[in-house]
Amino acid sequence: MSGDLQHEIVRLLDAVGKKAEDPMGGITRLLYTAEWVDSQMKLKDEIEGYGLRAYFDAIGNLYGRLEADASSRTGGETILTGSHVDTVRNGGKYDGMFGIIAGILAIRYLKEKYGKPLRNIEVVSFAEEEGSRFPFVFWGSKNFLGLVKQEEVENVFDHDGISLAVAMHRAGFGFQKENHERRADVKAFVEIHVEQGNVLEREQKKIGIVNSIAGQRRFSVELTGTANHAGTTPMEYRQDTLFAASKMIAGILGNAKLQGRPLVATAGFIEVKPNIVNVVPGNTNFSLDIRHTDSGILKQFSDESVQLIYEIAKECDVAATVDMWMNESPVPMDDKLVACLENVCKKMNLDYKIMHSGAGHDSQLIAKHIPTAMLFVPSKDGISHNPSEFTEPELLTDGVLALVEALYQLAYVK
Amino acid sequence: MSGDLQHEIVRLLDAVGKKAEDPMGGITRLLYTAEWVDSQMKLKDEIEGYGLRAYFDAIGNLYGRLEADASSRTGGETILTGSHVDTVRNGGKYDGMFGIIAGILAIRYLKEKYGKPLRNIEVVSFAEEEGSRFPFVFWGSKNFLGLVKQEEVENVFDHDGISLAVAMHRAGFGFQKENHERRADVKAFVEIHVEQGNVLEREQKKIGIVNSIAGQRRFSVELTGTANHAGTTPMEYRQDTLFAASKMIAGILGNAKLQGRPLVATAGFIEVKPNIVNVVPGNTNFSLDIRHTDSGILKQFSDESVQLIYEIAKECDVAATVDMWMNESPVPMDDKLVACLENVCKKMNLDYKIMHSGAGHDSQLIAKHIPTAMLFVPSKDGISHNPSEFTEPELLTDGVLALVEALYQLAYVK
Repeated sequence: MSGDLQHEIVRLLDAVGKKAEDPMGGITRLLYTAEWVDSQMKLKDEIEGYGLRAYFDAIGNLYGRLEADASSRTGGETILTGSHVDTVRNGGKYDGMFGIIAGILAIRYLKEKYGKPLRNIEVVSFAEEEGSRFPFVFWGSKNFLGLVKQEEVENVFDHDGISLAVAMHRAGFGFQKENHERRADVKAFVEIHVEQGNVLEREQKKIGIVNSIAGQRRFSVELTGTANHAGTTPMEYRQDTLFAASKMIAGILGNAKLQGRPLVATAGFIEVKPNIVNVVPGNTNFSLDIRHTDSGILKQFSDESVQLIYEIAKECDVAATVDMWMNESPVPMDDKLVACLENVCKKMNLDYKIMHSGAGHDSQLIAKHIPTAMLFVPSKDGISHNPSEFTEPELLTDGVLALVEALYQLAYVK
Repeated sequence: MSGDLQHEIVRLLDAVGKKAEDPMGGITRLLYTAEWVDSQMKLKDEIEGYGLRAYFDAIGNLYGRLEADASSRTGGETILTGSHVDTVRNGGKYDGMFGIIAGILAIRYLKEKYGKPLRNIEVVSFAEEEGSRFPFVFWGSKNFLGLVKQEEVENVFDHDGISLAVAMHRAGFGFQKENHERRADVKAFVEIHVEQGNVLEREQKKIGIVNSIAGQRRFSVELTGTANHAGTTPMEYRQDTLFAASKMIAGILGNAKLQGRPLVATAGFIEVKPNIVNVVPGNTNFSLDIRHTDSGILKQFSDESVQLIYEIAKECDVAATVDMWMNESPVPMDDKLVACLENVCKKMNLDYKIMHSGAGHDSQLIAKHIPTAMLFVPSKDGISHNPSEFTEPELLTDGVLALVEALYQLAYVK
């Protein structure tokens, strides 16, 4: 049956992504676009084709449901799986979509093999997670959780000036009712996703069990010095902002490397003015992204890094301003669910790794309200958000089978 | 008379620069443009207005000449002063032009005070030094020295596709004759220029005597790593090119600071890809400019820097290529002329500083063929190649008076 399953995973990934293939490469499926509507409708058809009930909520999250046995005492409870349907621009076909397809196929597999469960099982295709069309993230899971109010997106527009509300209405959806409450029936959420990193591949593991999603702090650092002639200004008379920035980046990233996992620190963006070979840079801005699974360590390392920035700025005679514009706390996954996933992998003899997620996921919102855990399948070369995103079909299949077993434990076993 | 002189310096700087004032700020007077022709013709008029003989050479270098006394045994010898007439785009009104105006006014001053000299005195307004219109530098002094062949500029075009030859012909000039030889009569060249740095100002000196022009080596460093997700890639699995570049720049510039004057090292340009806050930079290119007055030390420091680049690249698991695309040797000034200028400053009780030039000048070409030295006047805040370039009129006047005295020693004293 796993040969069939693998064939079905590949078929669904291709079929559902077809219309969203971007002439500039990869998949572009932004919230409420024609490509998005096409994919959600195709997913609905597939869900119904497998004999499951499909339905949308108000804002366009799509669900596929296998009802519990009518006689079950836990028939009012639901086990949820799934992920998000949207992509970044020119993204890959696995990010988000694999978790939806895996959920659909897992439920179909369980239904065919075991019939009706003791608890309802649902798969969700969340409308949006990436924030790629509108400057607003987690629109799907936030609405699922009843965490977002209409006024929060009143002034949210895409690049063409179309408001989120107008785009939503054009796609056939609308805001939730004012008194919308979070569903009380959902007792567990298990999301399967591509790793988007290279840890599983490097360590030759087949599957990852996520026990925590890292918190992250992001900073903009702005350095102001003086743009002097590169030949005529002695080193001691310079206010060289790129020299200062280099010392800061080398220092902070060096410290992060010394401290080791799960700490990561990244300077991804740098802008220098005037950026001319023979002029000492008078202005340098750079970004700093720091992540850790422990909020105390995250705060401490961030504070020490900011301290180092000010020390080096003083030493280099440049002015520094540091702006922390993102501060997201780490989110632990549910211990019991993690243990359940670990037992599943042991039982299946799957070479697994307990790990954290350095990237953000719908699960980090849901985990605060519903017991949640995640499974990761390896990403080839760690590449994601890119047309070359790829995972071997065999590894995708292992992931779906692990999800099958986990959902079995959660929905079929008393 | 120095009050008159100061007034005349300011009048000439304003009058000659008028048409070249750029609506976007500062002065733009590129080789063979209408602004350039206007300034050279105005300078010619001023030279003739002071009763000196003005003439152009074939390519458009302008000369103003005070003939030696007919009875002088050294009447076949010439003492030359001057600088270049062109500017960078949106440059200042002092760079280059001050040296020409100082020369004209110094010769007029000497003529009025002492009459005919024992040696001819000439001022030159070199056609070009900056390389701002065409990718070719020192066009004026190279032609003066007979160092450039017609074929060298056959494929030299400006941004609008106009060749140097066509621009030159349109301005009314043409190539030198094939058998053109360097003038044998010029026995000394003294160039006065704005410092373009902040050393004199910081050390509260009124004038600089240049004993050497620094050599410079310029490098392009290209680093190739992998663009990974900033959250999901552990520090030890990264090939982070901005981390590597930061270590290189911090290391090399730190070494330069430790070694101290006259060594300078600058990373003025950096380019990072993809340059996104949450992506580890997969590609980073940066520039390195190293200068010193001693060719041995310049080579050694450059070699050590390149060595450090390769070491850090290896340590950071990124590929590095280093391209040295400029290698200019240091040029010492003439000892006797430097001593002469020092005596002049002592005699005039001018607070001077013996120093090197970190910037390039026409003098560095001429010094290889004719005894040469330079005088610097302070630059406010060290700013040059910028509309805010400025030197106090009093300091300009001190500079002209020092040039007067130097030319007197060289052209009136046996």
